Amino acid sequence: MISSDDRTALLEEISIHPPMRLLFGPGPSQVHPRVYQALAQPVVGHLDAYFFEISSNIQRLLRTVFGTKNELTFVISATGSGGMETAISNFVLPGMKVVSFANGFFCDRMSEMARRQGAELVRFEKPWGEVFGDQEAAEFIRLEKPKVVMYVQAETSAGAFQRGDAICKAAHEVGALVIADCVTSLGAMPVEVDKTGIDIAYSCTQKGLSCPPGLSPITVSPRAAEWLQARPTPNRSWYFDLKLIADYLTISHRYHHTASATMFYALHEGLTLIEEEGLQNRWDRHHQAHLEFVRTLEAMGLEMLVAPEHRIWNLNTPKVPQGVDDAKVRTTLLKEHGIEIAGGFGPLAGKIFRIGLMGPLATTEHVHDFADCFAAALRGAGYKR
Amino acid sequence: MISSDDRTALLEEISIHPPMRLLFGPGPSQVHPRVYQALAQPVVGHLDAYFFEISSNIQRLLRTVFGTKNELTFVISATGSGGMETAISNFVLPGMKVVSFANGFFCDRMSEMARRQGAELVRFEKPWGEVFGDQEAAEFIRLEKPKVVMYVQAETSAGAFQRGDAICKAAHEVGALVIADCVTSLGAMPVEVDKTGIDIAYSCTQKGLSCPPGLSPITVSPRAAEWLQARPTPNRSWYFDLKLIADYLTISHRYHHTASATMFYALHEGLTLIEEEGLQNRWDRHHQAHLEFVRTLEAMGLEMLVAPEHRIWNLNTPKVPQGVDDAKVRTTLLKEHGIEIAGGFGPLAGKIFRIGLMGPLATTEHVHDFADCFAAALRGAGYKR
Repeated sequence: MISSDDRTALLEEISIHPPMRLLFGPGPSQVHPRVYQALAQPVVGHLDAYFFEISSNIQRLLRTVFGTKNELTFVISATGSGGMETAISNFVLPGMKVVSFANGFFCDRMSEMARRQGAELVRFEKPWGEVFGDQEAAEFIRLEKPKVVMYVQAETSAGAFQRGDAICKAAHEVGALVIADCVTSLGAMPVEVDKTGIDIAYSCTQKGLSCPPGLSPITVSPRAAEWLQARPTPNRSWYFDLKLIADYLTISHRYHHTASATMFYALHEGLTLIEEEGLQNRWDRHHQAHLEFVRTLEAMGLEMLVAPEHRIWNLNTPKVPQGVDDAKVRTTLLKEHGIEIAGGFGPLAGKIFRIGLMGPLATTEHVHDFADCFAAALRGAGYKR
Repeated sequence: MISSDDRTALLEEISIHPPMRLLFGPGPSQVHPRVYQALAQPVVGHLDAYFFEISSNIQRLLRTVFGTKNELTFVISATGSGGMETAISNFVLPGMKVVSFANGFFCDRMSEMARRQGAELVRFEKPWGEVFGDQEAAEFIRLEKPKVVMYVQAETSAGAFQRGDAICKAAHEVGALVIADCVTSLGAMPVEVDKTGIDIAYSCTQKGLSCPPGLSPITVSPRAAEWLQARPTPNRSWYFDLKLIADYLTISHRYHHTASATMFYALHEGLTLIEEEGLQNRWDRHHQAHLEFVRTLEAMGLEMLVAPEHRIWNLNTPKVPQGVDDAKVRTTLLKEHGIEIAGGFGPLAGKIFRIGLMGPLATTEHVHDFADCFAAALRGAGYKR
């Protein structure tokens, strides 16, 4: 190891000196010191026995957070959107009928990817921030009889959590596979892949798992795996070809691409922290922080965009009060407190704040610290109450 | 910052304890301590002004190592094979005639990706380890009149360096774009994109740049950028759509995917180390280490696969001497010395060793230390001389 004297000298020498941010945005989220420590551990090769040991542990730990027994549960070497493209490019064929539940930005991204794969896309649209009821969702699927159904479990653009039970049940009735985007929920809220009936779920590392971005966890049901084995044509994407990646990471260990030991170390540490805390405890902590956040903001006179029962715990979307310049609030938070939050975009531009409470920051203490700074920034931007 | 007492406690607590390897394989290569230090720096958001400052520096530093003035020079959020798919999926259309110079494993991977894009593929094949002469390459291109020509500058499976001047000249005569795989050469040998006439070059971070794997630098000539703007259909891949990525990283800074500040920090540090050393000095160091390596191995009675003038400096491929079990040599090196090297595969399985001399390990001192261990391992595996 490097001695602490050497380390100090190195710190003076390195070319980057990033500002210390408090990451209260929609992600990347705050990273635990132990994850940073893991990042600095020595690289091993992508075919090293130690790498496969780490990769195998990750698979086991991911099954817990995904809530699944799926054998095919591993990591794509790309960010969350790469996981999205993996899901869609492997399971959507040209000319295939695909139903997309569309109530936000990431649903639209899924639609766009399916279109590029040549899908015959049918969209059920709702305003951003609303969710689909069990009955209307099931009826739509029964009517359209698609081969694939796509929805976003935690829609980061609006802060709404979509329950999937009825969607999955109806989809399976008509013989369709279900792809669910769990990018924001994984590690912070119950994803429950098996209980819900999701066939393909993917996520990212930089939100509920509180690691740096760079990898995308994915899980595939036996039903979907069977379909994939029988797929008539190869995936147009070689890089995201699930059969090749599964073979490399889980079966033969035959070289596919050069997976990053460094990023795997970080994810391993992030997942170990979750295991140490206990998944239920972690969910409870995020839930409590969320409730305290809503209470505190409502006491300040703010309103939430999403109905109470459909809110994402770790991504809160209070409305921008009338007369307040939201950009000014965000700039003040960043410049005066080093706090990052995000604004709305698309139809919600200027109308909401997007405030993440994830990982180490999901505590009532951090909620109060944040709320103090937020209140001051709001007042500075014209908020009268 | 974390105090050194805290740091020691953290080290005891973290879940991973990787073995210390000396990475003398084809990559990942040995990582400089300053790069590890950069990895542990605090994450900022993918839309943070500081992130774009780092990204912009990376673009400038990459232009130097690529040897290009190309405006479109940046980083793909995937490994080297993701860079390959970016190049091919953006510039190869269904039905398009593509010439592939095929003399190794990675040429075959390029062919496979082009096939999946629906290309009409024409291959000029040579045994692994050989290269294409200027005249035969030019004649083949003039005869076939393709729209795209692909070749691998430094073929990692065999250790051969392919000069590209004649290929690029002939390709441009017939109006074709040239894609060159520079995965192994970048940062260790002259790539010289502009001087050679390459239109699209991509690489990785974990070989000549001596960073962890996870990103893929890419550069696109104005001629290729113009073609891309006029491309009739969108790329089937959204994740690797160069127009969207360029817009995010270089033009509007509009969100595309969540690029990893962590990996960008590492690459920034790796490129800064090259700038501090001077690119010509770095090339010279790799060249000298290579020459010393060949001298030392030939003195031990070993032969190199590739003719002297076509060798990759940083990836050496001595033949396995007759009667020697190459797997035993590799196992001994790994178990007794923590040294990773690789064997041959495909038509070269059991016939060559693949030994990298990259980044911090490309010194005559390391060559001698390595050669001592290698000689002992060879003797232990039945080598008589």
